[in-house]
Order: sequence, then C-alpha cells, then structure tokens
Amino acid sequence: MTPFERRTRRAQERLRAADADALVCAPGRDCQYLADVESEQSDRLQLLVVPAEDDPTFVVPALDAGPIRAATWVDDVRTWDDDDGPGTALDPLLSSLDPSRLLVSERMWARFVLDLQERCPEASLGLAGDVLDPLRMRKDETEREALRAAAEVADAAMRDVRALGDEAVGQTEADLAAFVAERLDAHGGEETAFDTIVASGPNGADPHHASGDREIRAGDSVVFDFGTRVDGYVSDQTRTVVFDGDPDPEFETVHDVVREAQAAGVAAVEPGVTTDAVDRAAREVIDAAGYGEAFVHRTGHGVGLDVHEAPSVVAGDGTTLEPGMAFSVEPGVYLPDRFGVRIEDVVLVTEDGAERLNRTDRGWRC
Amino acid sequence: MTPFERRTRRAQERLRAADADALVCAPGRDCQYLADVESEQSDRLQLLVVPAEDDPTFVVPALDAGPIRAATWVDDVRTWDDDDGPGTALDPLLSSLDPSRLLVSERMWARFVLDLQERCPEASLGLAGDVLDPLRMRKDETEREALRAAAEVADAAMRDVRALGDEAVGQTEADLAAFVAERLDAHGGEETAFDTIVASGPNGADPHHASGDREIRAGDSVVFDFGTRVDGYVSDQTRTVVFDGDPDPEFETVHDVVREAQAAGVAAVEPGVTTDAVDRAAREVIDAAGYGEAFVHRTGHGVGLDVHEAPSVVAGDGTTLEPGMAFSVEPGVYLPDRFGVRIEDVVLVTEDGAERLNRTDRGWRC
Repeated sequence: MTPFERRTRRAQERLRAADADALVCAPGRDCQYLADVESEQSDRLQLLVVPAEDDPTFVVPALDAGPIRAATWVDDVRTWDDDDGPGTALDPLLSSLDPSRLLVSERMWARFVLDLQERCPEASLGLAGDVLDPLRMRKDETEREALRAAAEVADAAMRDVRALGDEAVGQTEADLAAFVAERLDAHGGEETAFDTIVASGPNGADPHHASGDREIRAGDSVVFDFGTRVDGYVSDQTRTVVFDGDPDPEFETVHDVVREAQAAGVAAVEPGVTTDAVDRAAREVIDAAGYGEAFVHRTGHGVGLDVHEAPSVVAGDGTTLEPGMAFSVEPGVYLPDRFGVRIEDVVLVTEDGAERLNRTDRGWRC
Repeated sequence: MTPFERRTRRAQERLRAADADALVCAPGRDCQYLADVESEQSDRLQLLVVPAEDDPTFVVPALDAGPIRAATWVDDVRTWDDDDGPGTALDPLLSSLDPSRLLVSERMWARFVLDLQERCPEASLGLAGDVLDPLRMRKDETEREALRAAAEVADAAMRDVRALGDEAVGQTEADLAAFVAERLDAHGGEETAFDTIVASGPNGADPHHASGDREIRAGDSVVFDFGTRVDGYVSDQTRTVVFDGDPDPEFETVHDVVREAQAAGVAAVEPGVTTDAVDRAAREVIDAAGYGEAFVHRTGHGVGLDVHEAPSVVAGDGTTLEPGMAFSVEPGVYLPDRFGVRIEDVVLVTEDGAERLNRTDRGWRC
C-alpha cells in the first residue's frame, strides 16, 4: 500500500466516524496528499471522490486524464468531454452514493460547490478539513524530512542574504527579492512558495508589504520573509537585519523583545500544550515590554503542502499539540512610519518538545 | 466616475433586475474588474460586497488593508484582525443587508462559501457570473486595446520561435517553453498567462501536454500554445510548426484541414450569430474531412482578465455574439501516438464581423 492509499484509508475511517458519505476534493493539496496528483482548478470540473466505504474515483476532463492516470494509485478514473459536460461521469457516481453529507475541499471553487449542491439537493455540505486536517497536521517521517530539507534551503538563502553586507545598500527591495529567488533555486528549492517579502525601513511596519522599488539605505532595518518547496513541502522563515549603519534608536530594544518573544513561543511548544498557549507565551513577552498593540497578527500557522494550513497558532484555536505537527512561530512588532521587526522559524513538535527547522543567526547585525 | 465605478453601477442595475441583494466577491478577477484591486485569496477572509443599492464595501484583514485602500475607488473598507476574526466586520454588514439572495464570485473558496451560507442561513446562493458575465463579455475600448497589445506580444514571441528554424532541433520542450517565456518578457508581456504548451511529435496528440524533456527531432511537428498579459488582459495563441525535415505523411493533410476549420470558425463570427454556430462552422470542416472523432475539445473560450471566461464556444452554450466580445477560435485534430495540430487566434467581435488579434503565419513550415 502506498502512503497515499494509506492516508486515504485513514480518511475513510474518519469519514465513517463523522457520519459523512464522501470527501469531494477539487484539484489542490488534498488531492496531492491523498492521490499523489498535482493539478490546478480550471473551468473544467475535476474531482476526487472518496466515499466512506469502497474505492475512490476521479472524475476528470478527458483532455487531462493522461497525466492523472499516470500519477495516481486510484484505479477508477472516469472522463467526460466538452460536448457532453461533466454530468455523464459525475451523476451516476453521485447517484450511487446518494449522499446525505459531503465534505468538500476548502478551496473548491464556488461554481463547483453550488453545482454539487444542485446535483445533490438533499445533501448537507461541510469542509474536508474536518476529516483531513487531523491527518495532514501530523506529519509522517517522509513529510518531516521534506520540511527539514525545505528549511535548509531557506536557511542557505538567508545566509547568502546576510553575506551581502553593505553591498545590499542601494539595491531595491525587488532586486533583493530576485536575489532570494535565485539563491533558493541555486540551493535546490523547487519554487518560491509565496511572494517574497523584502520590507525595508518604514515598509517593514507593513507585515504583508509587497517588495517594491524602494532602495535600501544605511541604517534601514530590512525584514526578509520567504520560503520555498522541497518534495512539495514548504519552508517559511523571517529575519530582520541591518546591512550597514545605525538603525532607529528604538530598533535594538524592539528587536530584543521580538527575539525573546519568539524564543518564548518556541520554548512553549511540546505535546499536550495548546496552540493558544504558544500564542500567549510569545504575546506575553511583547505585552510586558509595552508593545502589545503593535503585535497585530497571530503568532503562527501550520505548514506542510500548504503555506498556511492547520493548526492556526492564535487565541481561540485550541488545537492540542502532538508529535509531528509543524507550524511557524513568528511574532512581530510594527511601528508605523518607522520600522517593523519579525522573526520566524518553522518548528516541528517532537516527543518531548520542539525541533526548530530554521537555524540561522537571529541577530540583526549583518 | 472611474470605469471601475461605472461597471459597478451597471452591475447593481443587473442585481436589481435579477432580484438579488448583493454580489459577494472573493479576491480575483471580479474584484479587479469592479474595484481595481488585484489580490489573491488566502486563509484570511477578504470580500467585496456590492449591494443592489448604495455603495460597495470591502471587508479585509487589517494586515492587508493598506494596498487595498490605495488601489480602489471603494471608500468603505472595513477591517478585522486575527484576534477577533472576520465576524466583527462582516456580520453587521450582512445583518443590514438581510439578504434573501447573494451572488458569489465563481472562484470563491468553499470555506468562504459555506461560512457565508452559515452566516446567512435564509439566503440562497448563486453565481456572480449571472450578473457579471454579460458585462465582462463586452469589452470596452480600453479593454480591447489591452487585448490587442497582449496579442501583439504573443505574436512577436511566436515569430521569434519560428525564426529558430533548425536551431530548435535538439532542444527540449522545456527549453523552448523557457525561450517563449523570455521572448514574451522581452516584448513587454507582464507574465506568462498560463503554463506554456510545447508539445512535440507524439506529445502533440495531448491537447494539454505539459512541456517536458523530450528533444525536438527533424520531422517533428510541434504545437506552441502560449499567452501573456498586458494591463491585466490575456493573449492566447497556438501554432503548429515543423522546424526541420519531413513530418508524418498525413501531417500536411491534417494541418490543412485544421487551418481551414479555424478559418471557417473565424469567418462565422459576427454579431447575432451564436457561439454554437461558430463551434459548428469549425467542426463541420473537420467532420467532413473524416477527423471529427479526433477533435476532442470545444472550439474556444472567452478571454479577458481570465484566460478562460464567458462565453464558451461549444455546442449548447448559445450566447449570441455582440460587438466587443473576445474569444479564442482553436480547433485541433489529435492522432494518438503520432501527432496533433491546433491553430488558435483570439478574435474580437466587431460591428459587422470579426477582428483577428493574432496575425502571424499560420503555415507549418518554418
């Protein structure tokens, strides 16, 4: 049995426990996780249907069937063509399921969600995450190795960034983002996992700043938040550095606070603790230093095949940590019109604590 | 009034006519079309709500509010933060709407669709396309200019491909796809609009072939299907060429048939004709030549901000053509294990016929 089939069989156990009739997954990470198929949604319907009992079925456009058949362990691949539309393949399947509850993948397009609801008016719809998140959250050894490898690529690129030293001064944020992309590629990353954030000087105060044409000056602090993929699994790290000159007089204090908060968040990670407690551990350090209002986002998010997946490290999430869970710990402090500081590592929950996957220097001086 | 506000006001007229209470758009092309905001869906809820009456509202994560406020004419931008969740901003808005029918953007993620349904249990959900497709299908002069400019970039790149001549022999499909990307960029394209298809020899028989490591040989026919964006609007063109040597003995016949079918499809385009008739005009030529079974997809699809949008040029679509509509005409014939031929231009419906936006040589010999 392949790992993909094993995951599918576990999902089926959970489907039965949840009293749901089937998972219905659009192209995306759920299909990659269960069926080893990497494809993207398009206007032509493509679904993986995993019933609570028996074997799963793909319903795919005839045009796209070849690569799917070649990639997956799922034997039953039913096709439809443009003249007839998807009903020829989908309706008999749904009719044999006669579902009262279907769980759809979280990113399925609305057009397919409403189409499914119309074809199964009696069925209630829920989210596949109810069944799949508990599985996807607990990474197996192969997944852990991929996460470690992805973190190592990101770390190698971050070391290259740091080594620029005062050569970075005069370059634009976009130049440095291109440099990061090139270094991630050179160290073996598969693709940039999300838009690289290079946020310099006052731009650092925007946690989601889009790297632009501002030139780095001496004395600027610069936030570098980027990641890549290895074997499909992502990395995500942030460092805040100063390439040359003296930063804002308050910068060093803020950087120390964030660094301490990040360390406290990581130190709180162990099996049995909740995500809320990890968020609180980081947040308390920043609150105590008087910067609580300036920490404007959650402490972290799960990472795996998706850049953002379960669990969310935020007040109210309440997931109890177990070995194999992986997520970011990334507190930040943002002072509008001045600067921002964020420090982020991905951590993996171990049997008795946490393994930090990102290990580069967390200091600010290059 | 900006063109974006003008489009929104027209959408509101249509909302009232459709007896719907509001459009609810996730980040994507609908938001770009109505509000001039380009962003992508993430796990943090972001919605543009356009009520049938009064002014539209954005509900956005506080983290992402800055660029949205800077980009859009929409004044009412309400934010939420990670600690409180989106309900603080969204619920009062929905409560004041008290909707009985909401139209959601076609690509809104299932998690947001189901969340919306839960917040408004009394409301029926439909698709925003019911109201927006008729608007988005009819391109205004600015949009037409962008489509023309995008087609010119693609044409310039295709000329560069053709000019490779026998230098292409020995290169892999992936090499040539990278060459296309570089040429699209050099001629001013904003980004590759979709995965470039370079399908050589027998791979050409797969209409959606992923460019791989097969090397081009003398006598191979090679399908080049690619596009780019200018001002957000896409191009999409296909040529099937032979760089060197003599192709399969049946190739020239098939190429002539497809070229004639493509010309017949384009010739059928004029206001008042339906998309079905355009599909039929192209299909009849291929049927008459005995290759009907080998033309395995629709004749074309609308293009605009999306690579695939309304109308679909397929039997059963039935959209009546009007000036300003833009779509591909791209018949093909696919002979498994041997070769495939596809020829594609984007056409714009004019007052009395069609303007082909792609104008490069449609012959096969380089």
